[in-house]
Amino acid sequence: MPGPFSGIRVVVYGVGAMGAIATRLLVEKGAKIVGAVGRSPSKVGRDLGEVAGLGTRLGVSVESNADLVLSRGADIAVVCVGSYLSSMHRHFETCLKHGVNVVTIEEETVFPWTTAPDHAQGLDALAKANGVTLAASGAQDVFWLNMVTTLLGASHKVETVVGRCRWNVDDYGPEVANHLLIGKSRAEFEDYVASSGWPEFVARQVLEALVARLGLKIGSMESDVTPVLADEQVHCRSLAAEIPKGHVIGTIDRTAVTTQEGPSFEFAMEGRIYREGENDTNLWQVTGEPNLQLECDDANYRFTTCSTLINRIPDVIAAAPGLQSLDGLNPPSYRHH
Amino acid sequence: MPGPFSGIRVVVYGVGAMGAIATRLLVEKGAKIVGAVGRSPSKVGRDLGEVAGLGTRLGVSVESNADLVLSRGADIAVVCVGSYLSSMHRHFETCLKHGVNVVTIEEETVFPWTTAPDHAQGLDALAKANGVTLAASGAQDVFWLNMVTTLLGASHKVETVVGRCRWNVDDYGPEVANHLLIGKSRAEFEDYVASSGWPEFVARQVLEALVARLGLKIGSMESDVTPVLADEQVHCRSLAAEIPKGHVIGTIDRTAVTTQEGPSFEFAMEGRIYREGENDTNLWQVTGEPNLQLECDDANYRFTTCSTLINRIPDVIAAAPGLQSLDGLNPPSYRHH
Repeated sequence: MPGPFSGIRVVVYGVGAMGAIATRLLVEKGAKIVGAVGRSPSKVGRDLGEVAGLGTRLGVSVESNADLVLSRGADIAVVCVGSYLSSMHRHFETCLKHGVNVVTIEEETVFPWTTAPDHAQGLDALAKANGVTLAASGAQDVFWLNMVTTLLGASHKVETVVGRCRWNVDDYGPEVANHLLIGKSRAEFEDYVASSGWPEFVARQVLEALVARLGLKIGSMESDVTPVLADEQVHCRSLAAEIPKGHVIGTIDRTAVTTQEGPSFEFAMEGRIYREGENDTNLWQVTGEPNLQLECDDANYRFTTCSTLINRIPDVIAAAPGLQSLDGLNPPSYRHH
Repeated sequence: MPGPFSGIRVVVYGVGAMGAIATRLLVEKGAKIVGAVGRSPSKVGRDLGEVAGLGTRLGVSVESNADLVLSRGADIAVVCVGSYLSSMHRHFETCLKHGVNVVTIEEETVFPWTTAPDHAQGLDALAKANGVTLAASGAQDVFWLNMVTTLLGASHKVETVVGRCRWNVDDYGPEVANHLLIGKSRAEFEDYVASSGWPEFVARQVLEALVARLGLKIGSMESDVTPVLADEQVHCRSLAAEIPKGHVIGTIDRTAVTTQEGPSFEFAMEGRIYREGENDTNLWQVTGEPNLQLECDDANYRFTTCSTLINRIPDVIAAAPGLQSLDGLNPPSYRHH
């Protein structure tokens, strides 16, 4: 029986941990994988099925020349490489200029209009010129945006919306752990933030997309970061290191927004090395008339980022050309296979 | 400042407990109430603002002649009268034939195609002939349909979806309490069900809408009802009566569906007289890859049925003509005022 994605030609762009999960889901949905882009010398030249750990060959080699892979044509590229448009825009441009739609887990593209306006406008224009769409998805699409806007469909009057989530640093490998300064002392953390600043992470983009979806306008916005310090020595799997007591085992990224119309919004994301038995959480509390709340325990963000991304493929192909921030897409849908 | 509904002309059709809440929300959203339909001699002829307990007059009299009220024209009628199409179709027909859209809390219209196909097709044709839309909404729209389909947007593979909710019989007055056989003995309950059957309540319609939204096809379906018996004497506020130990204080309506494609669905709704401190619950558990869950504590179904209904007004006015079952509407939205 053909799967829901049969006939859709996909390039897997980025073959790390997330790209490997995405590859399996694409195969199970019946997509036709027509190319794979990677950069690690240990992966380039090998079959994508092997690199992704599927235990079967897919007849698609991982190649390092993205331009060449995309030039052969595809309906969409599934891009799982990095987290900020300042570096990721080049990858998106390569896809778009070849007339290939892009769906990505890159977080800034959730709502890039204020944090990276030049890249956002350039990519939007390039996508429109080539008749294709660039959009981001991932767990934030379901758990932090659309679940919340759907809940608010039951609200007569919103005063405050406060979201809290927790995710496991050890689910995402050494790059993310180092980005969060895992293992540093409090002084090192504070020195780093004081000297280098702290890039606003996806909490800001999520709230901006949420406010835009509700048709409200941002009045003021503030973001801050708080280190979570170990109260005993903790093992960090992704760094293969012991983190001493008192050192950083996580961070809480928080953004708060007031709107010109009145309602205020706050979202705090705690990324931390988990203790035994902890799982990914998602809690949103609404005050107003009435008070409302929503809780999703065990949200499994690592996996649901990939599964939501893949479920989005038909939406992104069907969307109007341009950069579609997450507030502009239809609600996410299950695709049965 | 004009509200989000300014310029929308509304008839409040049904001025009981739910119609009274709806009236206040409409006023606060800035709708223009142009008529009110009621039947109780204690309400007909009085000002809607008084009848709805707003403490202010609205300059709109409650009238018993629906045909007359609707003939004066309106954009939409907010219909809060009864629960089954077998009696409610006449009210909807009155609105539709005058070219007035209808949004209603009547539960069967959530997905009427299989339980009331003749009424559904007749109303669909009448709505299309008059260029207007008939649709149902209420708490089920947000909590039992759209929250669930949104969550499933993070699912790679669904095996089972099981929903549980609880609502307070005492929130809905004597008509609902009597409908649920509150106060009867177990033998009386069982005799009634054996001789008269038990009308499938909204659990079935919710699951049928859910399956339709997911693009799946029903394989088999079964519904049953279980009485909840008092383990001590309980006061029933809506009947102003003491329910003896062993008698009915609630029912659990359950529907289970298998689909031709594989996933199965179950939803059980417990309507019961609450103990001190209990509140309305909503829990959905998904098995598959991954397992997922969603919980909304204190869902306040009585109020959120009205608030969701009112938030739906712009969607129903904008929808394509015809009877739109809930699977066919856009996701619900907050309307800030």
